[in-house]
Amino acid sequence: MKTQVGVIGAGPAGLLLAQLLHQHGIESVVLENRPRERVESRQRAGLLEQGTVDRLRQAGATDRLDREGLIHDGVMLSFNGKRHRIDLAELTGGSRVTIYAQTEVVKDLIALRLAADLPLYFEAEATQLDGLDTDQPTIQFTHNGETHTLTCDFIAGCDGFHGIARKTIPAEIQGVYDKVYPYSWLGILANVPPSTDELIYAYHENGFALHSMRSPTVSRLYVQCDPTDTLADWPDERIWAELQIRLGTEGWTLHEGPIIEKTITPMRSFVSEPMQHGRLFLAGDSAHIVPPTGAKGLNMAVADTGYLFDALLDWYQSGNAEGLRTYTEGCMRRVWRVQEFSNFMTEMLHRNPDKSPFDQALQASRFNQLITSESAAATVAENYVGLGAQKAVSKSESVKE
Amino acid sequence: MKTQVGVIGAGPAGLLLAQLLHQHGIESVVLENRPRERVESRQRAGLLEQGTVDRLRQAGATDRLDREGLIHDGVMLSFNGKRHRIDLAELTGGSRVTIYAQTEVVKDLIALRLAADLPLYFEAEATQLDGLDTDQPTIQFTHNGETHTLTCDFIAGCDGFHGIARKTIPAEIQGVYDKVYPYSWLGILANVPPSTDELIYAYHENGFALHSMRSPTVSRLYVQCDPTDTLADWPDERIWAELQIRLGTEGWTLHEGPIIEKTITPMRSFVSEPMQHGRLFLAGDSAHIVPPTGAKGLNMAVADTGYLFDALLDWYQSGNAEGLRTYTEGCMRRVWRVQEFSNFMTEMLHRNPDKSPFDQALQASRFNQLITSESAAATVAENYVGLGAQKAVSKSESVKE
Repeated sequence: MKTQVGVIGAGPAGLLLAQLLHQHGIESVVLENRPRERVESRQRAGLLEQGTVDRLRQAGATDRLDREGLIHDGVMLSFNGKRHRIDLAELTGGSRVTIYAQTEVVKDLIALRLAADLPLYFEAEATQLDGLDTDQPTIQFTHNGETHTLTCDFIAGCDGFHGIARKTIPAEIQGVYDKVYPYSWLGILANVPPSTDELIYAYHENGFALHSMRSPTVSRLYVQCDPTDTLADWPDERIWAELQIRLGTEGWTLHEGPIIEKTITPMRSFVSEPMQHGRLFLAGDSAHIVPPTGAKGLNMAVADTGYLFDALLDWYQSGNAEGLRTYTEGCMRRVWRVQEFSNFMTEMLHRNPDKSPFDQALQASRFNQLITSESAAATVAENYVGLGAQKAVSKSESVKE
Repeated sequence: MKTQVGVIGAGPAGLLLAQLLHQHGIESVVLENRPRERVESRQRAGLLEQGTVDRLRQAGATDRLDREGLIHDGVMLSFNGKRHRIDLAELTGGSRVTIYAQTEVVKDLIALRLAADLPLYFEAEATQLDGLDTDQPTIQFTHNGETHTLTCDFIAGCDGFHGIARKTIPAEIQGVYDKVYPYSWLGILANVPPSTDELIYAYHENGFALHSMRSPTVSRLYVQCDPTDTLADWPDERIWAELQIRLGTEGWTLHEGPIIEKTITPMRSFVSEPMQHGRLFLAGDSAHIVPPTGAKGLNMAVADTGYLFDALLDWYQSGNAEGLRTYTEGCMRRVWRVQEFSNFMTEMLHRNPDKSPFDQALQASRFNQLITSESAAATVAENYVGLGAQKAVSKSESVKE
């Protein structure tokens, strides 16, 4: 079995890459170890930067997004019940974000691929990658009880944090950076219209809470919980009671409704470098993960994918390998900016009893600065809507540790 | 012995307060436990915010400052040898800072007080404060081997971190917040013209360094050192060698010269709250200290003093006690903003080997953001020149932990 680009993982990164390549006549095979129903039902983030929407549009994958996506001009911050709005559009010269669930992006991309009758194998598990240093690397995978070998020009490792791709890169050349936070998120989907037009990020002395939405009839909400908590610790009544306390503010009502899904997500920052080894290129969660507070996981995966697609297109169309050669470097500066922003939002908004009273007071002071300084608010806004919106000071190159 | 305001400490806060009160016909006595020569020779910071210069001008203490002070429009940041300029004036709509040593401010204020023949006692040690809850509190002090009692309307505790004033406030009503940093500053004065027109703050993998200046012929420089280091560990050659490495950049020369003073300063953040107890009011280092990276110690002391003076004037002129009643609250928001900024600058610019590789990479990313984002640079600039320069987002009140 042979193709040009072997893609491991049918998440947003892998599916988007395959679609973009297809539009330019470059063949790929997508291998996904889970069943289709599972891939199409996993709840993930749902906030798209403009650059992410642009890439999906380039891929012809925005028909439904354009109809159903909710455009948001701002975001609400709350500190112990006191609300403050960050006007994203005003602070960034017109940039906005789109609310549209990652699950829906994945469904749309799968539908496109299957409609075009292009190779996408579910329950196909990549078990070994070979020849990464040659110009014909291979992916060994199992499907329907049989083992196959897929020979490619390039392999795209879009198989997430637990996938095989990153683990294939020799540990001795890998730099690993990580941080585990002493709290988790309990997330729910509820069949109730959102009680807010814009997202509400709340710090409360009881812990963080977030009110987001999936559609005009489905709300998505989160509460900070202990990393050792299980779903049994959080009956529906306790979840709503905490959401009422943490999100509450005078003159506003949080509407409750039937909870249709509950999950607990640990909070972690992780970066692996380099993102390339021979002819293997990592994109998205396989190379780096962020705590969800900045809503950056999907957006970072799409940014990597865009960079990788541009580099592959250059190579196939004109034999120019420069984009492939500088892939890690090209992605890394954005990766670290996004990591820093996600860490900043996470630390500012969560209650961390391990922090000293001094550091807790600095946390409140950082929140205050967003309320009182236009520059500080603009810095958060430009990170939140995506780095394209950033007004550059100068053409200086970035520094490197 | 009797006066209206008893002032403990002849640092910038105490001397400035006494001078402002004197201009409005309010009597005070200033008690300083050290000899005059010591007070006039201690090397401290030397960067004045515009608001600080304004208060000194109000006090009639800027004759020499206006002649000798150096106006700076910008500041240089360096990361492993790569320089970047923060244009303070451009980023804040015209705000600047003035380089003029704290020692000189103190000399000018002492000269004014002595010329007016107003009570200022050196080697006068306050040993006990009583009656703080009455309207006639007292200061017991020793001078020339005798013990005296000074009866006042109010006591201003401007006696620094180690003074008696804060220690007199009962521990059970005091909130204390602090942080000790795992590095110190070795500071030198050198008889050599500064090699730069503007301050250079440098991060280097060997550690932090700062090139500042006292005058056109005297340079002030600092290197990060270990908290356990003594001056014996730092012969002059080692100091210059490290300064050359840490401050160095292509096409620039650091000129060396005779070192005329060397001191090691530990780095600490400290806040005590409340800043008032009965008729005792703390100002400056007696209530809070900052690591020197943001050059805020003197400026915060002058801001407290200004607030206290305005409140006392209101009370003496119209019997309005509102400013006195809200003194802590009025100072505190600025205190925490300045603490957060000083902590931010300190953590961004020092090498801290205890930090995880992830946190070290975030540190580089924060530095990068200052180079690439105008909003981020403006946030630093407005904090650096002083909070008056901040463009407010809205009239929202601040939040409180």
